[in-house]
Amino acid sequence: MASPNPNQEKEGVVDRVMALPKVVKEKVLDICRLAKEIAQDDPRKVIHSLKVGLSISMVSLFYYYQPLYDNFGLSAMWAVMTVVVVFEYTVGATLGKGLNRTVATFGAGALGIGAHHLACLSGATAEPILIGAFVFALAAIASFIRFFPKVKARYDYGMLIFILTFSLISVSGFRDDEVLEMAHQRLSTIVIGGSACVVISIFICPVWAGEEFHHSTINKLEILGDFLEAFVCEYFKISKEGEFEDNKGDSKGKSFLEGYKKVLNSKSSDDSLANFARWEPGHGKFKFRHPWNLYLQIGAFSRQCAYRMEALHAHLSSDIQGSPEIRCTIQDLCLKMSLESSKTLKELGSSMKTMTWSSSPNKHIANTKVVVKSLKSLLQSSSWKEIDILSLIPVVTVASLLIDIVEFTEKIADSVNDLATLTHFHIENTNKSPKPSQSLHCECV
Amino acid sequence: MASPNPNQEKEGVVDRVMALPKVVKEKVLDICRLAKEIAQDDPRKVIHSLKVGLSISMVSLFYYYQPLYDNFGLSAMWAVMTVVVVFEYTVGATLGKGLNRTVATFGAGALGIGAHHLACLSGATAEPILIGAFVFALAAIASFIRFFPKVKARYDYGMLIFILTFSLISVSGFRDDEVLEMAHQRLSTIVIGGSACVVISIFICPVWAGEEFHHSTINKLEILGDFLEAFVCEYFKISKEGEFEDNKGDSKGKSFLEGYKKVLNSKSSDDSLANFARWEPGHGKFKFRHPWNLYLQIGAFSRQCAYRMEALHAHLSSDIQGSPEIRCTIQDLCLKMSLESSKTLKELGSSMKTMTWSSSPNKHIANTKVVVKSLKSLLQSSSWKEIDILSLIPVVTVASLLIDIVEFTEKIADSVNDLATLTHFHIENTNKSPKPSQSLHCECV
Repeated sequence: MASPNPNQEKEGVVDRVMALPKVVKEKVLDICRLAKEIAQDDPRKVIHSLKVGLSISMVSLFYYYQPLYDNFGLSAMWAVMTVVVVFEYTVGATLGKGLNRTVATFGAGALGIGAHHLACLSGATAEPILIGAFVFALAAIASFIRFFPKVKARYDYGMLIFILTFSLISVSGFRDDEVLEMAHQRLSTIVIGGSACVVISIFICPVWAGEEFHHSTINKLEILGDFLEAFVCEYFKISKEGEFEDNKGDSKGKSFLEGYKKVLNSKSSDDSLANFARWEPGHGKFKFRHPWNLYLQIGAFSRQCAYRMEALHAHLSSDIQGSPEIRCTIQDLCLKMSLESSKTLKELGSSMKTMTWSSSPNKHIANTKVVVKSLKSLLQSSSWKEIDILSLIPVVTVASLLIDIVEFTEKIADSVNDLATLTHFHIENTNKSPKPSQSLHCECV
Repeated sequence: MASPNPNQEKEGVVDRVMALPKVVKEKVLDICRLAKEIAQDDPRKVIHSLKVGLSISMVSLFYYYQPLYDNFGLSAMWAVMTVVVVFEYTVGATLGKGLNRTVATFGAGALGIGAHHLACLSGATAEPILIGAFVFALAAIASFIRFFPKVKARYDYGMLIFILTFSLISVSGFRDDEVLEMAHQRLSTIVIGGSACVVISIFICPVWAGEEFHHSTINKLEILGDFLEAFVCEYFKISKEGEFEDNKGDSKGKSFLEGYKKVLNSKSSDDSLANFARWEPGHGKFKFRHPWNLYLQIGAFSRQCAYRMEALHAHLSSDIQGSPEIRCTIQDLCLKMSLESSKTLKELGSSMKTMTWSSSPNKHIANTKVVVKSLKSLLQSSSWKEIDILSLIPVVTVASLLIDIVEFTEKIADSVNDLATLTHFHIENTNKSPKPSQSLHCECV
């Protein structure tokens, strides 16, 4: 191919340079839009950013205010560093990091001073060699301990700071004999910085990891409930009164059908929230040793449901839709089963939300069991003699996956009941009249 | 109830104190056993720990060696800190953190010096106020930017160091006018510490995140292949020649059946490995811009298979086992389908391992498609008139889930083919005779 005309190439470059301001402007606008979205989605993130700014400014007073500076001098730097590194979004994460940092600094400081004295005793030549050997051994051992699963989960940051402080104290002791003074200053500035973080994160619009975990667990149950409802409506082509009719309703239905995807990969965020929550003191409805393990259990069962929902969701878009007659036959029972399960999940969610125990989820579960039984006997007794198995497959698979989900719903209910017993949920006044069940237009298509 | 005898209580306490050394000894032995296990499981973790010790000792030479100390003085501390904080298990993570730290220190240092000069111009009274305002604004904005998903994934550490350096430089500038000197020393010690980490992590027994990711992806395919094989054998109660007969074989079969659980929650580790791998230079078989996205895709499809396997696995222990006659009828086809899929997955894995493209996975896929077709026509044509649907459900569900898995296997094969095209896999010599297919004793029970 002939090379392009050099004039044309030049023009291309000029065009691109001319377009640059526009491209930059669009990029900046994009970023602003994203920032606005994040801020609107969760205004607490804006507040968190302001809190970080506030605590760094507060701690830098050590530099500006002469009497404070006289006390700490350059060590004041450690307070600023501590704030920047320790301040996290949730109270639990901040507390965990702060405690890890303080305890590790204290322990490593003490060990470092010991190592320094031991090395000093051995004479000027041996001193650097001995210190080097100590640092090497301790850094290697501590780095290895960071691979222990339990340490990795909760004390990883502490081990890091342990290595850091030990190396700094014992190594700089070689140049500066006031190791004790240095360790003391460092520890006190770190305690001051850490306390500033903890106080600000607890007392100014706190974001509790426990509360986040609680709400995310409830949210999972609601998502699963919504899916079950939306799925049966979509699969059996049922329109719910006034809800799925206009376009807005449709997109809502679609978001209900895709919500379970958030649950699928929720394990790592669950684990870290549970881990942070364990550091938190009692707050609001949660005591210090709130049984977060049960929340992890509920999360695991929710994921089991979500795995089945993934398989169900594939059936919506599948080419093979199965025989309409069979669908029509089992429709009523599948519908009832799913809606009862959906109600169970949603009521378990709201029972967790208000921390009141009510018997109504158990009633729904009993209903579901009855429906599962009748579905099974319908399948056993029906006259399917005329139908080929291939057109049966999708419908039967859907029914079987729904039955699986029902079983996990029961397990979730058991865990919530355990939670209610352990944390003494209030008992709901059962005289209230039950909610009327939703009306659905069932039409076989 | 009467309170226990105080003497008894005393004895209990004494017993517990006497037992203490034993308890401590057992605890220590437990920890040693765990450490041994971790070390045997992956000796590279021991090497990594030694590498950390080595680099910290190396960098602390700055303190011991007079000419070096004269140059950097107390700033040498930053080199030690950098090593402790930046040295990570994989090369990619170390490089990412090191680059983040260096670039952020450079940028924030320049901005900090600018802020310091601007504040100096405004007079002695306004200086601390102005600096405080700058620090507050920058810390708040940078903290907010850390919430942007793309920044959080790749530049979170950089943003943290940005806030840290800016605050330290501009705040300590208030007490020490040699800001430029300070910034320069800090930057150079950080560069030295960072380079030491990078050099040691690359040149002494490197652990490449890209290689880890590659192997974990291959491992996933093997796990899925093993599951399919073990599942059909277990479900249709087939014994494979000499393999599942003794106890050891059984436990192996069990581990094959549970392996998919590792795949279920692999998303977060996949994401972080891909992220680290992107920082790495070309190494071994991987070029700098290796298409890690395709690995993420293969991982996602593998998880889709694993979700179905979770549902399948529940059928093994389910009470309702379905009618044995129907099982017997579809057994041969299900078996062939699963084994072909299993072979496809394993051969895709070994093709990735050796980075050679072979046509044999595609042949297996073609075979699978034929089997799926005949399974479907068998189901359509068979005389099932006598059978009740309830006993059909489990068997049909299993077949349907297996068909789902076959579909995802195809998608995985497509992704591997894309990978082969993009990274120019070698093409295998196709003259080799194909492996004989495994012999299985099929007995209907």
